[in-house]
Amino acid sequence: MTEDVRMERDTFGEIAVPNARLWGAQTQRSLQNFRISTEKQSPELITALAIIKRAAAEVNTGLGVLDESKAKAIIEAADEIIAGKHAGEFPLAVWQTGSGTQTNMNLNEVIANRASELLGGERGEARKVHPNDDVNRGQSSNDVFPTAMHVAAADAIVKHLLPALKTLRTTLDGKAKAFADIVKIGRTHLQDATPLTLGQEFSGYVAQLDHGMQHVESALPHLYQLAQGGTAVGTGLNAHPQFADKVAAAIGKQTGLPFVSAPNKFEVMAAADALVFAHGALKTIAASLNKIANDIRWLASGPRCGLGELSIPENEPGSSIMPGKVNPTQSEALTMLCSQVFGNDVAVNIGGASGNFELNVFRPMIAHNVLQSVRLLADGALSFNDNCAVGIEPNHDRIETLLNESLMLVTALNPHIGYDKAAKIAKKAHKEGTTLKASALALGFVTEAQFDEWVRPNEMVGN
Amino acid sequence: MTEDVRMERDTFGEIAVPNARLWGAQTQRSLQNFRISTEKQSPELITALAIIKRAAAEVNTGLGVLDESKAKAIIEAADEIIAGKHAGEFPLAVWQTGSGTQTNMNLNEVIANRASELLGGERGEARKVHPNDDVNRGQSSNDVFPTAMHVAAADAIVKHLLPALKTLRTTLDGKAKAFADIVKIGRTHLQDATPLTLGQEFSGYVAQLDHGMQHVESALPHLYQLAQGGTAVGTGLNAHPQFADKVAAAIGKQTGLPFVSAPNKFEVMAAADALVFAHGALKTIAASLNKIANDIRWLASGPRCGLGELSIPENEPGSSIMPGKVNPTQSEALTMLCSQVFGNDVAVNIGGASGNFELNVFRPMIAHNVLQSVRLLADGALSFNDNCAVGIEPNHDRIETLLNESLMLVTALNPHIGYDKAAKIAKKAHKEGTTLKASALALGFVTEAQFDEWVRPNEMVGN
Amino acid sequence: MTEDVRMERDTFGEIAVPNARLWGAQTQRSLQNFRISTEKQSPELITALAIIKRAAAEVNTGLGVLDESKAKAIIEAADEIIAGKHAGEFPLAVWQTGSGTQTNMNLNEVIANRASELLGGERGEARKVHPNDDVNRGQSSNDVFPTAMHVAAADAIVKHLLPALKTLRTTLDGKAKAFADIVKIGRTHLQDATPLTLGQEFSGYVAQLDHGMQHVESALPHLYQLAQGGTAVGTGLNAHPQFADKVAAAIGKQTGLPFVSAPNKFEVMAAADALVFAHGALKTIAASLNKIANDIRWLASGPRCGLGELSIPENEPGSSIMPGKVNPTQSEALTMLCSQVFGNDVAVNIGGASGNFELNVFRPMIAHNVLQSVRLLADGALSFNDNCAVGIEPNHDRIETLLNESLMLVTALNPHIGYDKAAKIAKKAHKEGTTLKASALALGFVTEAQFDEWVRPNEMVGN
Amino acid sequence: MTEDVRMERDTFGEIAVPNARLWGAQTQRSLQNFRISTEKQSPELITALAIIKRAAAEVNTGLGVLDESKAKAIIEAADEIIAGKHAGEFPLAVWQTGSGTQTNMNLNEVIANRASELLGGERGEARKVHPNDDVNRGQSSNDVFPTAMHVAAADAIVKHLLPALKTLRTTLDGKAKAFADIVKIGRTHLQDATPLTLGQEFSGYVAQLDHGMQHVESALPHLYQLAQGGTAVGTGLNAHPQFADKVAAAIGKQTGLPFVSAPNKFEVMAAADALVFAHGALKTIAASLNKIANDIRWLASGPRCGLGELSIPENEPGSSIMPGKVNPTQSEALTMLCSQVFGNDVAVNIGGASGNFELNVFRPMIAHNVLQSVRLLADGALSFNDNCAVGIEPNHDRIETLLNESLMLVTALNPHIGYDKAAKIAKKAHKEGTTLKASALALGFVTEAQFDEWVRPNEMVGN
Repeated sequence: MTEDVRMERDTFGEIAVPNARLWGAQTQRSLQNFRISTEKQSPELITALAIIKRAAAEVNTGLGVLDESKAKAIIEAADEIIAGKHAGEFPLAVWQTGSGTQTNMNLNEVIANRASELLGGERGEARKVHPNDDVNRGQSSNDVFPTAMHVAAADAIVKHLLPALKTLRTTLDGKAKAFADIVKIGRTHLQDATPLTLGQEFSGYVAQLDHGMQHVESALPHLYQLAQGGTAVGTGLNAHPQFADKVAAAIGKQTGLPFVSAPNKFEVMAAADALVFAHGALKTIAASLNKIANDIRWLASGPRCGLGELSIPENEPGSSIMPGKVNPTQSEALTMLCSQVFGNDVAVNIGGASGNFELNVFRPMIAHNVLQSVRLLADGALSFNDNCAVGIEPNHDRIETLLNESLMLVTALNPHIGYDKAAKIAKKAHKEGTTLKASALALGFVTEAQFDEWVRPNEMVGN
Repeated sequence: MTEDVRMERDTFGEIAVPNARLWGAQTQRSLQNFRISTEKQSPELITALAIIKRAAAEVNTGLGVLDESKAKAIIEAADEIIAGKHAGEFPLAVWQTGSGTQTNMNLNEVIANRASELLGGERGEARKVHPNDDVNRGQSSNDVFPTAMHVAAADAIVKHLLPALKTLRTTLDGKAKAFADIVKIGRTHLQDATPLTLGQEFSGYVAQLDHGMQHVESALPHLYQLAQGGTAVGTGLNAHPQFADKVAAAIGKQTGLPFVSAPNKFEVMAAADALVFAHGALKTIAASLNKIANDIRWLASGPRCGLGELSIPENEPGSSIMPGKVNPTQSEALTMLCSQVFGNDVAVNIGGASGNFELNVFRPMIAHNVLQSVRLLADGALSFNDNCAVGIEPNHDRIETLLNESLMLVTALNPHIGYDKAAKIAKKAHKEGTTLKASALALGFVTEAQFDEWVRPNEMVGN
Repeated sequence: MTEDVRMERDTFGEIAVPNARLWGAQTQRSLQNFRISTEKQSPELITALAIIKRAAAEVNTGLGVLDESKAKAIIEAADEIIAGKHAGEFPLAVWQTGSGTQTNMNLNEVIANRASELLGGERGEARKVHPNDDVNRGQSSNDVFPTAMHVAAADAIVKHLLPALKTLRTTLDGKAKAFADIVKIGRTHLQDATPLTLGQEFSGYVAQLDHGMQHVESALPHLYQLAQGGTAVGTGLNAHPQFADKVAAAIGKQTGLPFVSAPNKFEVMAAADALVFAHGALKTIAASLNKIANDIRWLASGPRCGLGELSIPENEPGSSIMPGKVNPTQSEALTMLCSQVFGNDVAVNIGGASGNFELNVFRPMIAHNVLQSVRLLADGALSFNDNCAVGIEPNHDRIETLLNESLMLVTALNPHIGYDKAAKIAKKAHKEGTTLKASALALGFVTEAQFDEWVRPNEMVGN
Repeated sequence: MTEDVRMERDTFGEIAVPNARLWGAQTQRSLQNFRISTEKQSPELITALAIIKRAAAEVNTGLGVLDESKAKAIIEAADEIIAGKHAGEFPLAVWQTGSGTQTNMNLNEVIANRASELLGGERGEARKVHPNDDVNRGQSSNDVFPTAMHVAAADAIVKHLLPALKTLRTTLDGKAKAFADIVKIGRTHLQDATPLTLGQEFSGYVAQLDHGMQHVESALPHLYQLAQGGTAVGTGLNAHPQFADKVAAAIGKQTGLPFVSAPNKFEVMAAADALVFAHGALKTIAASLNKIANDIRWLASGPRCGLGELSIPENEPGSSIMPGKVNPTQSEALTMLCSQVFGNDVAVNIGGASGNFELNVFRPMIAHNVLQSVRLLADGALSFNDNCAVGIEPNHDRIETLLNESLMLVTALNPHIGYDKAAKIAKKAHKEGTTLKASALALGFVTEAQFDEWVRPNEMVGN
């Protein structure tokens, strides 16, 4: 049984396209020429491209260079895509032309065919809207695709990542406050150190996330600069002089984000520095989340042979062979995805460094990695929040027991008897397996009264 | 309209599972607890897991610890999975528990339910085959998942990557031979250098691929060592003493690859070194392909303002704004995916370095990256071969013109007049825009006859 | 002949130290225990540590917890170190304890011994100033070392990197202005594209550096937050309550940078996020410099068989065998060091992600990489500026020739005859090796007058 | 006071060189043109270059193309360099020309001047031996430098890294055997798991190192292929036809390693794949050492609030503020340097992927990273061995206590009562804080006799 096809045409000639599909010749050609792995262009990017096409049609008709009825149909088709109605029409691989031209044409073709239908015409060669001359009017893949990357990345960061981090931050801050009076042993070098409160420990995580949100916010201004209007090489050839500013404004209006036309189009098309830097902020967040996830799984290690200071929610059976086992799986998912973000960072760096002359042609790969990293961090933070962080509880008895056993409480004696004598007390206690107090008294460096006055864990945690 | 569900149960209690699905409680729980991004466990890994389950059933019944009719049903269910019949039944994210337990249970549950049906029973709680006690018999996720990673990686390398590289190698070798007599200018530091043949240039690419295949082959012996039989922590608790060897043999038989039971189970479960090293070979191949793809796009740059020594196939329109433009898109796809492999390498390294005690819990992430890299390199090499390499043609006129203009032919004079005088000739010609010969004669360092005898590009390319 | 030694002592007992050296027992012990490779703690870090010790002495005596004469001697000793007088006294490897404790003690010991001498005392056990109780008073390596990392990094960025980038930016901006009227062929995908001016091309580089400087500046606020005052685990145990703020102010005064006491000490000690993020800005600058260096070496490729649009300074003989060869060596040094920065970024990320509980113990490694990257980028930018960028000159004839040969001027016809017809013209000219005009006229799509009016390179470059 | 200088000359003219120095014009020029950071060419590389120069002189005189007395002087001068007598004469930065030409010329110049002196002549312009025509005879930097990289890397791997790994392997194997009967709790996901012996745990480390040594050995054959004889672009122009093979043999004889002339010179000069792959083996070793170092510091964590199963040597005071603190500093140094190796790997990959046409010009950077990684891993393994591994001791009491508390011993009941009932026992014990046995009996799933027979840790660790 043969698939029902129609013949579409581009400058390379005719090619058969499934009739059920809205895409055209160039999309079909790319499908056939790039059968490489399974990674597709991200949905966030497709949406951003549709937003651009919509904005361009609006602006072009306003500038009088595009027929109003065509513009209306293009806008309606774009809105359908934004609403997710044509999700199956964007089948192209990440691994295609490095400018993303084929995905830009995929959008142009789908919109042209769909707009034609909306105008009562056909899909295919006889369509009433032209992919290049109408949908792509005043545009080049070379400015469209970088614009879409900035729009998609900024939108995902502002609407997905930052709220997710905020949610986790709020949970951890709640824990920090709830745990403010729980004095516990500190650990440096994995070794017992002086005490702090569990709340203080968690306040460090909160501060990490606060900084992380600021870091990623500092990457937004560059992302808000759009290439649109630069056309082929940045000079704006064939675009109306007001096109760039008006499109940026239209995109800004639709997304609610403060996009502007990039003051220098050559930079934003030839390089991908805004994304390289933004990913620098993403990988910093990965470093933070990795530290937090690690701390929590270690503090919850056990139940009987680990540190055991925290309990975390039990969400699923932990082992297919060991009955009753519960594992810190949310920490594991989070640390795995942080590793992925570190890997993605390298791919983005290499891509970003590899532009030549007027264009960077590592764009689909960069977009793929940036958008994946945003998704991983946002989803990962939320999953960790909902399935782990909210349910963290201290094991009071265990915390108390460990605190009282520690030898590093001796540090409180430094100002009274000096570092060298304090060291002798700790070493003797360690060697003989006794308490600090016994050791201190045996050495005669302090009286019992002094020891009791000076070595008070609750007073060693600051204000 | 509510979805039709049944109640499944694990040690955490009941949970509703869509009746249309073969999976069970633990799969469902993972779906709900890990809503993180879109990356799913690779099909290659699912297949490898089914191969293991099949082998285990075969061995367990042979050893008398599994009922023969159950074993037969398990084998049949596994075969269906291997044949791709249940592709929709493995919905779990890469970002789950770091041991891959949930995906191991996904296989156990699907096979248990399907086997039950094959035995005339139901899916669900009343099934005739138990996911843990029957399908997972003698196994732990901790040995199953590492085994699946080795099986999937080795299989993909041997059956997909190596043949793809061989194909490209054969094409390039054909070109090297066809271009054996085309003398061209060499380039070092992007600057004109002494001549070589185009065939020699391509022979370098062939040698890179030959070495690359050897490198990746040297990673196979470690991959051929399987963890199966180590069970929970490497000691083999609850597995029959002959289980490990027999399963490795059964897997070897089914895949046609020389798998063996790892002599040290602790290493292969607690670390992922075999995969870290294998990816080291993959990234080396990425370095090779990147160099080849870059050379070819630069040599084909132009058509009028570049180097222009090669023509490559024109496969699609190159620009949505510049009519008639043709771009080296296969090189672009290939260099993009090489960047991705370099990024993946970092993720794999971090994961591989991060095991603790008896288990590495970065496994699904490592598997995802290794299998993606194999797929990218294999598919990328084939796409580049089919859509670019096979159609590479030399531009004889351009090659000839450039060769004759080069100043570095002066190097042939070194043995006759010394480096310093030869340098003077080249510098004078460069400064004055003349030919080497004119400069040499003007300086009086050689006679015309000597120049003509000594400076012969065709004799400067070795034998 | 035996070296002249004295016996120093720490809590581990006696150890022989060369009498010629100011360091003490713990430095000596580290030297013996960590014989690993050749990388030493960076001079920038040693200076920052001396600045901290100086500030601490000043503050401690002001707070009445350190004898005034001791404080004066400590300050004088620290000033000598800052002035570079004791460069040979800091021999410790990067690869030591992960908290940098041994290097903190190296400073404490050298300063204690030197201060003792300044007070008329001896170096060694009988010294008048105690390394821990006096020089390290109110401090812990756990707050000193992170503080030193922030101080050294911020100082190097502000005083070395940013000025270097500014210098290169100014040079390239001068070139952009000087080249404002030189119309040249654009290149996308390495293929001929529509024209732009050489000035526009260079303006893109300028914009990259402008953004780069902003990116790195956005990393400074976090770096300006100092850990000092957190002591062992962030609680400030044994430090005077005013110590943290006063030390930050003193360091700020000495460096001229707006350092403050970190509002959350737990974050700044347990993590290294400020440095991870700062390195994210550094790697973005590496991406920019890599692109610029690559463009320039490609545009200067030749002299006869490359693109040849630019001439760059000839600084040295290029080849030990090819006489007269000149190579783009400054671009090569710059791209090599950018690769190193990308590598360093990964090391920093792993280190930054790997803190546990109250302390990150990958500090000396992180410091080493951050400070090396700053140095590489700053020195590299300056070297490239002085030895290459300032001397870049356009090859007018070559630029003109290439411009006129390009087929992509056809793009100017799009708005007049549509994309499809324009493509036919370009393809026919390419196939037949003719000019665009000849092809356009032959196809009858435009008149000669129209062609001449519409296809004007000088009018295709925007305003 | 002016430094005493002489005038040296290259094709760029005269330049003043300190009279005290053996180097010449090109070295001096590089010093002035590349004032970038502090990293110098590695000593291992300088030695390898001297070995090549020695071999070339020997072969050239044997082939009759170099005067015998000159050859003898060159060999003597090279031997002095190999013996370390002129360490101060190689001042050039890593960040220079990407072919390493300047360092090749540095060798040529130093040897020429020193050989001239050995022949009773002067250093400087009037010298009796010519840097290019004599010392560099039959060579180009383009074949010399890649050859030196292979020689230096192979030599360092075989003579430094492999023995260091062997040493550590032997120590750990000794521990594995000594600890063969110590049954301890296993840990997966950081959570209590089924038991194994401490010897088994250590046997995993031994297996990791065994595999690591095999991995790195599999990288040697490619490294043993030398570029020498390829001269400028791989064709061997100006080199005697027998030069390549004879030089490889001479180098092999001097180093004791089986070097051969590369069958394809184009590959070995245009790419750096042998080094990219070798570094892939190095990073795998880093992954192994990281895991081992981490396990050991966690097992030794405490002394009172950690896992505490192992004691490691106390080598130095651990804290400048906490008296008596001892930290796992050798593990910290090792994990830090492993992070560096992962970073270096990325730099090497980017460099290796970035060759163009006949030459890779990221060579000094690649050499720097490969040789640094070898040094770090070798020195790091030895330092960890000598200062930590040899002194590891088990804490028998602690190990015993933890083993008996674990709930995962319940796994032994699976074959008898099934996974689901076993899970119930463990969960009840966990919830109620009781022993497994109490829980099992309370649930009535086993009799006391059965429990005692089936749950025997010593029998759960395999054979």
